[in-house]
Amino acid sequence: MGRAVPLGKSFEELEVGQEASFSKTLGECDLYQFAGISGDFNPVHLNEEYAKKTPFGKRISHGILTLSLAGSVLGMMLPGIGTVLVELQVRFRRPVFIGDTITATACVSEKIDSKKRVRMDLKWYNQNDEPVMEGYTILIPPRK
Amino acid sequence: MGRAVPLGKSFEELEVGQEASFSKTLGECDLYQFAGISGDFNPVHLNEEYAKKTPFGKRISHGILTLSLAGSVLGMMLPGIGTVLVELQVRFRRPVFIGDTITATACVSEKIDSKKRVRMDLKWYNQNDEPVMEGYTILIPPRK
Amino acid sequence: MGRAVPLGKSFEELEVGQEASFSKTLGECDLYQFAGISGDFNPVHLNEEYAKKTPFGKRISHGILTLSLAGSVLGMMLPGIGTVLVELQVRFRRPVFIGDTITATACVSEKIDSKKRVRMDLKWYNQNDEPVMEGYTILIPPRK
Amino acid sequence: MGRAVPLGKSFEELEVGQEASFSKTLGECDLYQFAGISGDFNPVHLNEEYAKKTPFGKRISHGILTLSLAGSVLGMMLPGIGTVLVELQVRFRRPVFIGDTITATACVSEKIDSKKRVRMDLKWYNQNDEPVMEGYTILIPPRK
Repeated sequence: MGRAVPLGKSFEELEVGQEASFSKTLGECDLYQFAGISGDFNPVHLNEEYAKKTPFGKRISHGILTLSLAGSVLGMMLPGIGTVLVELQVRFRRPVFIGDTITATACVSEKIDSKKRVRMDLKWYNQNDEPVMEGYTILIPPRK
Repeated sequence: MGRAVPLGKSFEELEVGQEASFSKTLGECDLYQFAGISGDFNPVHLNEEYAKKTPFGKRISHGILTLSLAGSVLGMMLPGIGTVLVELQVRFRRPVFIGDTITATACVSEKIDSKKRVRMDLKWYNQNDEPVMEGYTILIPPRK
Repeated sequence: MGRAVPLGKSFEELEVGQEASFSKTLGECDLYQFAGISGDFNPVHLNEEYAKKTPFGKRISHGILTLSLAGSVLGMMLPGIGTVLVELQVRFRRPVFIGDTITATACVSEKIDSKKRVRMDLKWYNQNDEPVMEGYTILIPPRK
Repeated sequence: MGRAVPLGKSFEELEVGQEASFSKTLGECDLYQFAGISGDFNPVHLNEEYAKKTPFGKRISHGILTLSLAGSVLGMMLPGIGTVLVELQVRFRRPVFIGDTITATACVSEKIDSKKRVRMDLKWYNQNDEPVMEGYTILIPPRK
């Protein structure tokens, strides 16, 4: 059977303003494994000699890798287990470099009563508190 | 020094209607490594016993993992190397299961002359040609 | 069903002198994952204390890992998808260190008409344009 | 400092006819990680829908991945730690499928006195004892 898994917050339990975050230092290994999964071997991520000559000056993270840290917040913390994503929108604001410590944050910004869906604002910061990405998601919270 | 790397298509070389795609069978290993990178250990992705009892009936891919296959198209094919993403929006339409073969496609839908940016429509299909995700990106093509 | 995948160049489309290349900075993570796949845990690759005392002075890449970058060229670029390798020969010329940026190149050197096979010369360079490996492959290009 | 690591057999200790082998079942995860390291996302390895329509009928291993199992034999067993590869030649004879159990074998076939090098014959078999690859390597055994 397997043990019961505790579901996250339901539509009724969520309130505008609730927030959660997840932080991680992005290692070279994260980029390399992400390339290996996605097939994105763009040299700006994996070729230091090439990256040196770009305006970035060194290898940068795949934007979707940085984005992925929000998945940990939404699926495991707030709302948590049982959440289903419906829509996701992001803007890439600053490059993220190997070794940067990224904090992904999610904040409930709207309860859409007609559909029992929730909108959450998403922001990603680096170790200097500079926003590197921002966006929002619309999701279906777990049903209990 | 390092060898020269061939850049992708510039704003001038891109035309509305051009498209490219990348296909891959999503393996269990992809989900597990993606969980390890992103921190998203939501049991719907990694816990078969839990997943059995959800409406999905078995483990499903992280939406952002499916999304990531588009990175391979945009960064390596069209426009290709040198591309910088500005914005990304997606809607999740159908679950993707372990073993599904996903094709990510990108098609130039608009040239934004004022900013030398390009809008590309994104669609992801499974092996039955059912759309599983769709969205768009706005990006800065490589400058030559 | 699945989407059609575009095949690479056929025997008829290949010409002596055509070439392609793929570059990547070899990260520590590459060596560690390659060890995990191949079972080659030779300390010259994974044990910095041991490697320090060898003539190399620090950890070096598995030769077959360096070699593998040619697979990306042959199987995805030239000839590309549908290629079947028949024979492969390489000589290891210089050590490759963690952090080196390696370019694998492949160049059509002979069309073997009797068997519809092609010989391609292979060379691998580091970021200082020093050859680190060289060899050749005989392969069957995709049939259309 | 680190502990001393026991070196493999020296030129003097090696004799024609000595052999060693290493076996492993190749998992889907091996192919996926190998693709991620090498950049070789050829669909015959990672796209089940595509592979179904090829003469192979299903996904096959990267030839260089199969080859890599010999690295474990040469670098860790015979001659063992301290071995430096000089040359490697292989022929690909049969496809290797996900789930096949491959045994890589290496046998000392010649001692090249003038250069203190050794030639070893290499063979790879599947679980039905069919040879899937064969070749040889010339190497410098550890110096003690």
